[in-house]
Amino acid sequence: MIKASIVGGTGYMGFELLRLLVRHPQAQIVEVTSRSNAGTKVSSLHPALNGFLDMDFIPELTDPGSNDVVFVAAPHGASMDVVPSLLDAGCRVIDLSGDYRLGNAETYEKWYGKKHSDAGNLSKAVYGLTELNRAKIAEAQLVANPGCYPTGALLALIPVARAKAIGGDVVVDSKSGSSGAGASPGDFTHHPSCAPNVTPYNVGKHRHTPEIEMALKSIGGNFGETTFTPHLVPLVRGIQTSCYVKLVKGTNIDDLKKHYRAFANENHFVKFVDGIPRITSVLGSNYCHVSIAMASESMMAAFSVIDNLCKGGSGQAVQNMNVMFGLDEKAGLDIPGLGV
Amino acid sequence: MIKASIVGGTGYMGFELLRLLVRHPQAQIVEVTSRSNAGTKVSSLHPALNGFLDMDFIPELTDPGSNDVVFVAAPHGASMDVVPSLLDAGCRVIDLSGDYRLGNAETYEKWYGKKHSDAGNLSKAVYGLTELNRAKIAEAQLVANPGCYPTGALLALIPVARAKAIGGDVVVDSKSGSSGAGASPGDFTHHPSCAPNVTPYNVGKHRHTPEIEMALKSIGGNFGETTFTPHLVPLVRGIQTSCYVKLVKGTNIDDLKKHYRAFANENHFVKFVDGIPRITSVLGSNYCHVSIAMASESMMAAFSVIDNLCKGGSGQAVQNMNVMFGLDEKAGLDIPGLGV
Amino acid sequence: MIKASIVGGTGYMGFELLRLLVRHPQAQIVEVTSRSNAGTKVSSLHPALNGFLDMDFIPELTDPGSNDVVFVAAPHGASMDVVPSLLDAGCRVIDLSGDYRLGNAETYEKWYGKKHSDAGNLSKAVYGLTELNRAKIAEAQLVANPGCYPTGALLALIPVARAKAIGGDVVVDSKSGSSGAGASPGDFTHHPSCAPNVTPYNVGKHRHTPEIEMALKSIGGNFGETTFTPHLVPLVRGIQTSCYVKLVKGTNIDDLKKHYRAFANENHFVKFVDGIPRITSVLGSNYCHVSIAMASESMMAAFSVIDNLCKGGSGQAVQNMNVMFGLDEKAGLDIPGLGV
Amino acid sequence: MIKASIVGGTGYMGFELLRLLVRHPQAQIVEVTSRSNAGTKVSSLHPALNGFLDMDFIPELTDPGSNDVVFVAAPHGASMDVVPSLLDAGCRVIDLSGDYRLGNAETYEKWYGKKHSDAGNLSKAVYGLTELNRAKIAEAQLVANPGCYPTGALLALIPVARAKAIGGDVVVDSKSGSSGAGASPGDFTHHPSCAPNVTPYNVGKHRHTPEIEMALKSIGGNFGETTFTPHLVPLVRGIQTSCYVKLVKGTNIDDLKKHYRAFANENHFVKFVDGIPRITSVLGSNYCHVSIAMASESMMAAFSVIDNLCKGGSGQAVQNMNVMFGLDEKAGLDIPGLGV
Repeated sequence: MIKASIVGGTGYMGFELLRLLVRHPQAQIVEVTSRSNAGTKVSSLHPALNGFLDMDFIPELTDPGSNDVVFVAAPHGASMDVVPSLLDAGCRVIDLSGDYRLGNAETYEKWYGKKHSDAGNLSKAVYGLTELNRAKIAEAQLVANPGCYPTGALLALIPVARAKAIGGDVVVDSKSGSSGAGASPGDFTHHPSCAPNVTPYNVGKHRHTPEIEMALKSIGGNFGETTFTPHLVPLVRGIQTSCYVKLVKGTNIDDLKKHYRAFANENHFVKFVDGIPRITSVLGSNYCHVSIAMASESMMAAFSVIDNLCKGGSGQAVQNMNVMFGLDEKAGLDIPGLGV
Repeated sequence: MIKASIVGGTGYMGFELLRLLVRHPQAQIVEVTSRSNAGTKVSSLHPALNGFLDMDFIPELTDPGSNDVVFVAAPHGASMDVVPSLLDAGCRVIDLSGDYRLGNAETYEKWYGKKHSDAGNLSKAVYGLTELNRAKIAEAQLVANPGCYPTGALLALIPVARAKAIGGDVVVDSKSGSSGAGASPGDFTHHPSCAPNVTPYNVGKHRHTPEIEMALKSIGGNFGETTFTPHLVPLVRGIQTSCYVKLVKGTNIDDLKKHYRAFANENHFVKFVDGIPRITSVLGSNYCHVSIAMASESMMAAFSVIDNLCKGGSGQAVQNMNVMFGLDEKAGLDIPGLGV
Repeated sequence: MIKASIVGGTGYMGFELLRLLVRHPQAQIVEVTSRSNAGTKVSSLHPALNGFLDMDFIPELTDPGSNDVVFVAAPHGASMDVVPSLLDAGCRVIDLSGDYRLGNAETYEKWYGKKHSDAGNLSKAVYGLTELNRAKIAEAQLVANPGCYPTGALLALIPVARAKAIGGDVVVDSKSGSSGAGASPGDFTHHPSCAPNVTPYNVGKHRHTPEIEMALKSIGGNFGETTFTPHLVPLVRGIQTSCYVKLVKGTNIDDLKKHYRAFANENHFVKFVDGIPRITSVLGSNYCHVSIAMASESMMAAFSVIDNLCKGGSGQAVQNMNVMFGLDEKAGLDIPGLGV
Repeated sequence: MIKASIVGGTGYMGFELLRLLVRHPQAQIVEVTSRSNAGTKVSSLHPALNGFLDMDFIPELTDPGSNDVVFVAAPHGASMDVVPSLLDAGCRVIDLSGDYRLGNAETYEKWYGKKHSDAGNLSKAVYGLTELNRAKIAEAQLVANPGCYPTGALLALIPVARAKAIGGDVVVDSKSGSSGAGASPGDFTHHPSCAPNVTPYNVGKHRHTPEIEMALKSIGGNFGETTFTPHLVPLVRGIQTSCYVKLVKGTNIDDLKKHYRAFANENHFVKFVDGIPRITSVLGSNYCHVSIAMASESMMAAFSVIDNLCKGGSGQAVQNMNVMFGLDEKAGLDIPGLGV
């Protein structure tokens, strides 16, 4: 049994890790920290775990080095204060924040608006989109789990990028449920404001933009600018992403479909579907459904759906854990989407 | 491995059975019928099953007798045409319709507005609320799986009924998500009509009323009238039930809580919680969360939440299968609620 | 033109007053106060008013006595600090808080958990349900505008109470949209928590309970206990109320319908409808739609729908202003519900 | 008083016309037709009109020529069967279908998949986006009221097009509430399917695409391809549109804002707002709120919100009627958005 602990079990990502790990056949939850809820029963904050986990939140891990893996579900900026000591203690770390995703301290500072306090470990971190970096993840001590939006966008774009068929700009228009904004209430997710609106936000400056660009560029090819715009929609779980890709002239969509199908065949959690992918199909699951179609003469649309908390966060993290420890990649993740 | 087939795999109840059975460790899906979709891939109608079930719908079971159990997820009125031949073939049958729940043909005719065509088998049928009839279910050849509303209402009311503390009328006000109305579109569940409304329906004549009364009376005690009113609310999955119970004078709510706690301790899928139960805690799961409080001087409120498709239907059916075949009652149902 | 000012224009009730008053043909908005937003353009906080109101919030009314009427949309407990000086200045006051509704200081203290600081004016206040107290409202200097829940409950219950047909207990189960909880974000109305749940709250202790009781008792008749339980449902605007009334034995529902029809005929904003009333029919409007049906042998259900911010608050307040100043009761309120 | 009749009063567009016209100070509803509901009270099908309109649906207009204006709210393909005889009778006609929008019969046939049966009148029809064609509308006998999506897209794009600042492709990603799909239930708007999903549809072939292109081209300028993709989101009313516009190199966004501000100043129902426009601000109203921002180095995002039934349909039609008959353009449309 893999010994796993969670730093930051209060929020939705922390909860989702617990939801998946309580029924993982080869992992065991050792400790769960929460500063604000230390001393409280985990299942009293997260009543869905009633009957599954009989454990209290503690303020800090008792003995980090006794864990095989530590999941860090702390806010951006807080992770980099915690991760160094975990690495020093010899744990393997899966960090769900944005702190180790961007590869270099300058980019981090530009997009996150603060200095990186652990720049030395940035080069150690492997960007944890399994479908992009499976082999490196297997060896990594530190995995930077991807953002929810980049996960949806990249799984829709990798095959067309690999096919070298992107011939110009890429526009990514994403629609996310409110759970992506976290468990703390605020004006943005106040029900009377959120339920009847569709709200673009952080236009031109969302931190997931460089993540998408970085990953696409790592694939190579010669393309234009990537424009990413997130929207809050009145869903709780789920991200639907519509990517508009200017194709290289003469590209045939049926040829592209072969690339998408091949990508799905290599990656269990990616399904290439006929018709339009539905969020309900992946709700509560680690799957990503993708489809493509011509949206105009020259532009392809690639559509994807994920559960932002699962494949877009904690499910992806568990998938990475499975890869890191040589388990079946599907272990603990063999749950179909809610469907209805 | 239990060999299980499903008659009627098109609707939401049929889908939910499949969602649960594809990952049941001791059951295997043999065949799934659908008249309207025969010849289609099951996962093309239910894309959440993509990667879990590679099978086509067939029009009728090939050899009913080769199954250990057949789940009948046909509409009310259609089940009683199918069940007799399944029983004759020697299968054990779990019927999810209302056809075998009411115990006698007169009551059936009164509430369902048609003659019962298989009255002879009514006495064979065991009412399949596991928490009420576990021992009988274990022996039954034919289980009449309960309605969604009665499941929510009864799990909230059984302890106070057993405590002989009901001293007058019982008012049951239930709020259900739209999936309870089934997969066929209609005015009632048209999004523009359903999303901004709360709609009581079938007032004074909902078919689940006699089910609730019958089960409560089977417990005994001397009480007044049961008034049940269902409401459609803008949720997809989930039923929240508020039961208002006139208590026997002098009843102490803390004593009642002991009865509720004991009932929960005897029944894994019932959790008695502090505070107000939340639908999200049980979403996609087979759990029922219950709490009680004084709603006025003389009336107790008992609140419950269930997932109408799972504990309110197919999850309950799988739980019954587990009991019928001597498996761990939790087998295949070890999934926490979605939580968020 | 009636000169009207608003104390407390930040919240939803304040906004709704503005939405109605900007197009009222015989009233003019003089000033709008807000401590937190003083100096800000009203339409920048409330962008729906863009093009309708070109005015800044000010911290306090400049010259209260120059107004014909002042609407106080301050929180419970804050109104009673403001109202006395407005009355002294000679204004007529419509208070939207609960501070002057309960008639005596003891009841206030019991339900609101604090001493009343202006008990001397309680006897001056007229309970502002126009349909109950039209004549008194016309003369009042201080109107205590009703709570949203009591408005929905009472308009459904007054005819059966007047008919002396209540023969026992009354159970009121109300379902409200999230705007009823106000504009300040919190856990209760956090979208991920609110959107997929139905949540009873303040069970047995909601402050609207004594308001309902007080008004019913003022009608007279001999009945049992009133149990009121509010539920938060995933709507923004709207309250649906289901009242379960134990009828006097032998009461004929068709006779009762005559009482309901007569009540609607006397009151423009009450419509007695066939079938089930729909929230959409009254959305954004000052109407209340009501229907009744037998919910069991002995219990009648009375259903009502209102827009909680309009007829359940600011629309009712404008209706009261119309009555107080001898205007057409419908002035400025001649808007049909949104319908879809 | 303008005498106005409505052909097709059953659907949402028909209802919305009625909702606006019942309180229009200078128009009077003469007749409302509905084949399916002839003989029924209008307010029994549309209970929001209870107290506002006491009239039955009739199967056909009694004497078309006695009307000043006839609104045709018939489905695409049915309008062109009705309009010729109305024109012959001498009425002015505002057609809400797509039948007369595209200017020539070939384009119609390409996008609507059928021959145009009244091609002769196509040249008479004026495209009824008031903000684009006010003068021509004033003179027109036949106005082709715009589609809901083109209204939202064009009001966001006209100023940048007029500024000749579009330097390449335009991507239009629209999100619409379910009322846009009409009053007839179907799989697409079945609540359990619609409420938890975001669904792109008619990708690459939506009939509003040529409308957007035609109007943009009429403004002139040299630009690339327009890609339009509609999405169904879980709202009832409202369309949010995000337009991504490749700018001419060197374009300054502050200069563009001047064009947007000027356009809003010339058009009462267009408001250019700081920050992100909110659907709630325009809900139930005829307003369109617009804002712009740089979405990346080279691409501007223009965001707009409208109520699809009002400014996106019937409100626009009433605005056109006002222009056609020389009334105040705002007559009957002086309602702020619902706001909350």
